[in-house]
Amino acid sequence: MTFEKIPYKIYLSEQEMPKTWYNVRADMKTKPAPLRNPGTGAPMGFEDLRGVFCDELVRQELDNDTAEIPIPREIRDFYKMYRPSPLVRAYCLEEKLQTPAKIYYKFEGNNTSGSHKLNSAIAQAYYAKQQGLAGVTTETGAGQWGTALSMACAYLGLDCKVYMVKVSYEQKPFRREVMRTYGAAVTPSPSMETEIGKKILQEHPGTTGSLGCAISEAVEAAAKNPGYRYVLGSVLNQVLLHQSVIGLETKAALDKYGVVPDIIIGCAGGGSNLGGLISPFMGEKLRGEKNYRIIAVEPASCPSFTRGRFAYDFCDTGMVCPLAKMYTLGSGFIPSANHAGGLRYHGMSPVLSQLYHDGLMEAVSVEQTKVFEAAEAFARVEGILPAPESSHAIRVAMDEALKCKETGEEKTIVFGLTGTGYFDMVAYEKFHNGEMTDYIPTDAELQKSFDKLPQVPGLD
Amino acid sequence: MTFEKIPYKIYLSEQEMPKTWYNVRADMKTKPAPLRNPGTGAPMGFEDLRGVFCDELVRQELDNDTAEIPIPREIRDFYKMYRPSPLVRAYCLEEKLQTPAKIYYKFEGNNTSGSHKLNSAIAQAYYAKQQGLAGVTTETGAGQWGTALSMACAYLGLDCKVYMVKVSYEQKPFRREVMRTYGAAVTPSPSMETEIGKKILQEHPGTTGSLGCAISEAVEAAAKNPGYRYVLGSVLNQVLLHQSVIGLETKAALDKYGVVPDIIIGCAGGGSNLGGLISPFMGEKLRGEKNYRIIAVEPASCPSFTRGRFAYDFCDTGMVCPLAKMYTLGSGFIPSANHAGGLRYHGMSPVLSQLYHDGLMEAVSVEQTKVFEAAEAFARVEGILPAPESSHAIRVAMDEALKCKETGEEKTIVFGLTGTGYFDMVAYEKFHNGEMTDYIPTDAELQKSFDKLPQVPGLD
Repeated sequence: MTFEKIPYKIYLSEQEMPKTWYNVRADMKTKPAPLRNPGTGAPMGFEDLRGVFCDELVRQELDNDTAEIPIPREIRDFYKMYRPSPLVRAYCLEEKLQTPAKIYYKFEGNNTSGSHKLNSAIAQAYYAKQQGLAGVTTETGAGQWGTALSMACAYLGLDCKVYMVKVSYEQKPFRREVMRTYGAAVTPSPSMETEIGKKILQEHPGTTGSLGCAISEAVEAAAKNPGYRYVLGSVLNQVLLHQSVIGLETKAALDKYGVVPDIIIGCAGGGSNLGGLISPFMGEKLRGEKNYRIIAVEPASCPSFTRGRFAYDFCDTGMVCPLAKMYTLGSGFIPSANHAGGLRYHGMSPVLSQLYHDGLMEAVSVEQTKVFEAAEAFARVEGILPAPESSHAIRVAMDEALKCKETGEEKTIVFGLTGTGYFDMVAYEKFHNGEMTDYIPTDAELQKSFDKLPQVPGLD
Repeated sequence: MTFEKIPYKIYLSEQEMPKTWYNVRADMKTKPAPLRNPGTGAPMGFEDLRGVFCDELVRQELDNDTAEIPIPREIRDFYKMYRPSPLVRAYCLEEKLQTPAKIYYKFEGNNTSGSHKLNSAIAQAYYAKQQGLAGVTTETGAGQWGTALSMACAYLGLDCKVYMVKVSYEQKPFRREVMRTYGAAVTPSPSMETEIGKKILQEHPGTTGSLGCAISEAVEAAAKNPGYRYVLGSVLNQVLLHQSVIGLETKAALDKYGVVPDIIIGCAGGGSNLGGLISPFMGEKLRGEKNYRIIAVEPASCPSFTRGRFAYDFCDTGMVCPLAKMYTLGSGFIPSANHAGGLRYHGMSPVLSQLYHDGLMEAVSVEQTKVFEAAEAFARVEGILPAPESSHAIRVAMDEALKCKETGEEKTIVFGLTGTGYFDMVAYEKFHNGEMTDYIPTDAELQKSFDKLPQVPGLD
């Protein structure tokens, strides 16, 4: 353990990069609840899921026991193209805030997909390729996940079919073209390519689409083509497993300089980044070795942790996917149209939901104008233009650092900077022009959504 | 000197980062020709230039003798926020091409400005601040330089006024909003804020602006306000000096692994990146210590090196700036409207022009469809989405590597990957849709432009 002066950016060497993912479920006393069949209520096993996911990914999805799962060499080679990502000591932000706190952030935006999504995209594409599949299908909204998957598939020579919400396809042509650069077939959803798409177009001729509809189309397209599987960029246990590379690198970098964080902060939509960042730290906490304050940050307009129910719900708005037990606002919940800060998913990773339920982590919600204020302040001193999603974590990291200023405590704060905001300038513009507003759903609105939570056969 | 296995990315430590810039002029036998007053033809000295540039920058502009110029600590601290940039071994590209060549690229796109421009922006802003100035003015087209300058000014608390070509301001709102995020005042040019702007708007009420006009407005705005200076992101000697940090880091990273390049390739618009990348290598060549093949790559539609004249010309289309001796297509030359690949400047850095004239480097021109083909192939295997500008260098690096495949030679190729293409997706879309065409100016067109080259009083 050395205590030399800490550089602005800590990079691990390639030799120091993780060779195994860490599966936090192995150390959880209460395991996350299993996925259930919406028709029968029965827990879903290997045979039930392998029609949807690749075999190896189903194994990872169901494995609650193995703590360390080897990262195949091919995936590690791909990781070397854009990893290790830097752990940045935010010296400039500290000075700006005049805080005694020591702030670090793990920056995952330095790859063309612009976010951490690539960590799981390459893993899912790799196992699809290994199983001899021809390709994968997925849905995408603004396009971050679709871009990551396109990159992974291009690298492996795998077919990639992306259903992109029509309004995004038309209004956000940039990410669409990035996906096309990587050879993906990008279809505006709803489309005439699927039965569900045709049906929706017949019923709502002018619809601009929704994520729920795009999921349904992607699932149908995978089901209809034997050589294809459907893949997803968040929520699932397997995704958190792959994303643990974020936390493992963070911990290795901190260990190198003998730094032990007091507070770990991440933004939370479906939980892919937060789950990945905190995994190894949560492991130490679960094993009683260390105690960290862990904070999930979510938008006040989509507050699944802080105001949702811990219940079984559909993972998709189309109600075709399995039921997952999670903190949820109801699968029909849609954040207010004025919400520009991302993290719009109605539910939360079952793993994180269980950990939160068991009191192992905290959650706070923040309003988007405060988030963009933090984003801008951060950009000006740290240089990086953050994604609105990531800026939720910046907001709370700054708030905690300002508390330290009041108390004089020299706490060490680590947060996840998941990505860049290049494709979010419309939202930034709204903010600059003073046109951004906040909206917090009323209790009555949420209740209306909770009333539609599914009954699970065989459970109360 | 070690010969261990070379990693995918070589990062220098902060201790290994350069503490001085390298001024290649010190080693040039024939120095670049001085800037001249367009009215009198007299070489411009310190007193002539200090009304336009900060004092320290004028000194750097005129210093043809000092080889090593210290980088102030404040600038080195800023560099640490986004540097060292990685030197990447393009293992995946090598495999894709099945070439025995060893390919490396220095990637300068991992900062929010998306390019190497930040290296000089922070230096120019720093000296302005040090001189006690209130702010700087500049022009920007697509916005890469304006973004870099905004970031630097935000960091130093300096006022930043950017005149952005009106058509870009309206059609490329994203970069405009990035600049606003960094607190810059961005004005569509021509504007009613300056005399020249008013005049142009009166004469051409519907004009969408031009870089030449924006330069004129920025220069006027600086001249009218005593606490302001005008700054520029390319062409100038001082810019090449600051950009030498690219080449110095590249050389240090190669030296660490005992690698000596055979060929060094860079794209060339005004020369800021190419000049910076090659400086220390050119120094060795000038001192007779090493011999490298150095190749400048330019667009076939804007071929200043390969088809231009080596003559005194205006640096701006508005003809308000000093005359510089350089390879030029004439200050009135405008690349064909179908040209989407950047590098549109009519002239070339006087330093690089002299070196090219003296046979110390080569130049080739490439057509844009070939450039985008290379860009897409590169993106798919190396992950990074390259800027069209940078892709000129990729094209020629790939061509050279394919020649090695034919001959079996294991040459080491280093090229500069100057930036990312996130804001260039309109051009990529055109390429994907098969709508991109090439245009090579005819000899008659160029001659028409050469005919307008200025007569310099006192010279032939």
